[in-house]
Amino acid sequence: MRSAVLRDGTIAVVEVAEPVPGAGQVLCRTLACGICGSDLHYAEHGRRLVELGGPGAGVDLARDVFMGHELAAEVVAAGPGTDAPAPGTVVTSTPRLLTAHGVEQIAYSNDHPAGFSEYLLLSAELLNVVPDGVDPEHAALTEPLAVGLHAVARSRIVRGESAVVLGCGPIGLAVIAALRLRGVEAIVAADLSPARRALALELGAAHAVDPRAEPAIETWRHTAGASTPVIYEAVGARGMLQAALADCPRGGRVVVVGVCMEPDEIVPAVAIMKELEVQFVRGSTAQEFAQALAAIAAGRVPVAAMITGRVGLGGVGEAFAALRDPERHCKVIVDPRLP
Amino acid sequence: MRSAVLRDGTIAVVEVAEPVPGAGQVLCRTLACGICGSDLHYAEHGRRLVELGGPGAGVDLARDVFMGHELAAEVVAAGPGTDAPAPGTVVTSTPRLLTAHGVEQIAYSNDHPAGFSEYLLLSAELLNVVPDGVDPEHAALTEPLAVGLHAVARSRIVRGESAVVLGCGPIGLAVIAALRLRGVEAIVAADLSPARRALALELGAAHAVDPRAEPAIETWRHTAGASTPVIYEAVGARGMLQAALADCPRGGRVVVVGVCMEPDEIVPAVAIMKELEVQFVRGSTAQEFAQALAAIAAGRVPVAAMITGRVGLGGVGEAFAALRDPERHCKVIVDPRLP
Repeated sequence: MRSAVLRDGTIAVVEVAEPVPGAGQVLCRTLACGICGSDLHYAEHGRRLVELGGPGAGVDLARDVFMGHELAAEVVAAGPGTDAPAPGTVVTSTPRLLTAHGVEQIAYSNDHPAGFSEYLLLSAELLNVVPDGVDPEHAALTEPLAVGLHAVARSRIVRGESAVVLGCGPIGLAVIAALRLRGVEAIVAADLSPARRALALELGAAHAVDPRAEPAIETWRHTAGASTPVIYEAVGARGMLQAALADCPRGGRVVVVGVCMEPDEIVPAVAIMKELEVQFVRGSTAQEFAQALAAIAAGRVPVAAMITGRVGLGGVGEAFAALRDPERHCKVIVDPRLP
Repeated sequence: MRSAVLRDGTIAVVEVAEPVPGAGQVLCRTLACGICGSDLHYAEHGRRLVELGGPGAGVDLARDVFMGHELAAEVVAAGPGTDAPAPGTVVTSTPRLLTAHGVEQIAYSNDHPAGFSEYLLLSAELLNVVPDGVDPEHAALTEPLAVGLHAVARSRIVRGESAVVLGCGPIGLAVIAALRLRGVEAIVAADLSPARRALALELGAAHAVDPRAEPAIETWRHTAGASTPVIYEAVGARGMLQAALADCPRGGRVVVVGVCMEPDEIVPAVAIMKELEVQFVRGSTAQEFAQALAAIAAGRVPVAAMITGRVGLGGVGEAFAALRDPERHCKVIVDPRLP
């Protein structure tokens, strides 16, 4: 079978053996798999991520690395003695695989083909069945939405409070969607890109501003300024954390959901004077994953708007490059069945 | 009357008019006033602190600045129409003064003589009466202990959890004392200075380590490693926050109570991979202040051990310099009655 792998920092399409499901595992055929910002990070900063004990710790970057963890797939065959949904059932899964060696990540693996492959193994225990009628492309967005739900849950924001979301890439948009699901309506989003700002409004932000024209915190001040906002930093570039600390009103919270791989400078005294809290977040729980799928299936999140492109395995490399242009793309779906 | 003021970054003893209490104010005679790390910071970084909106925002550094806010004093006379304890009563106060212009800080003021003065004004509303038999020098330590209580309260640590305290200056020691008051016993403290480590044990740390010999987190791991620790960063030097983030186990909390005035570098990805929370804290509430005084009065905190020197107003400048040597000093008390 074919798989688009990371090889020396670029994407190559290779032929690999179709995986064989062990006990507790299910062989699935990939229907749709989103390209995640983490995939781009991994291609660029793999060595650093491995050192940090992040996803793919233990991976040998000198060998091919399988990627793709925002996926929907259909069941082909269950492993020995394994209860699984009937063949043809559309499923998604938290991005983890239960193996004889314990819990491993789906994607960022030398050993297990992931979502940028024609077939992959999932764990029966972690499967979520996608309800009939839900587009597999939409179900593939369960994982990033779950990350948004997780960030919002960790922030302890409650209905009636207000939020500022810095950066409207897929994760910033997922945070906006998750805030709306939690009943938070006073959401100010900021992004340099007009296309991303339009998406932010579509996902449920009350305001979407160009921070060069007006800082998000100013918009917050003259629209929602009653309660202290929670600021979600979803850009992940150097300087953004300090910008969020500087903007954040006294006693406020900053949630860091964008991954800045570079060392970054902050001025602790700024945060101390205002007694700020900074919560760093990552990933999601199995429960949040199920909640995300249920919200998508119920049509409560306009995920279709986020999908800006589809490619076959041969188009993955080019899509990695194209995703660096926020005007052009938000979420690109890989469908290995495409030519 | 005499007052030791900050003038062009150094301490000068000057003659100023004895203050006259307004309505709601009480003229008091200073009995004891601790020199705080913030005083040293202010002498060195006053301009930056003013910019940051910290204590003394609005102060004109070109004029003399009154300092001294860890104080015990005796009541001399109440302002017009003001209920106050009888003259001679020993009191302490949260470091704030209620004036016709609103709430101002005691200390870091161009206008109001503070604790490094023979006399000062306190607000009747904010007075805490020091119980009979409590040494005024000990009562003067109420304010720093309250800062420790505040940091510990903000950290939401509970009995049975464990703590690592980085830095055993007066605030690190206050955190240790506050942890013990809250029922936390598994406390690992770290400081480069043997004298400070001895104090940490005296204040109630279970272990006090030289981080050059063994990192505190290692001591924590082989002594208290069951629950995730809360790490209190009470050094306030560049690099300490990142060191705490690097040490902190997955899902842990770092409480920043040491004030680093310089820009500082962190690696956000380290905190993201472990989903750490960072809480920046400062100051204390009136309630925490009263709790701190009650704990001192009840003999529950061995504050006497922290006091390593006494000076009159003429010795304040020299004490500022001497306090930079942790082997020599921890807390120096200014007693304006001394020659």
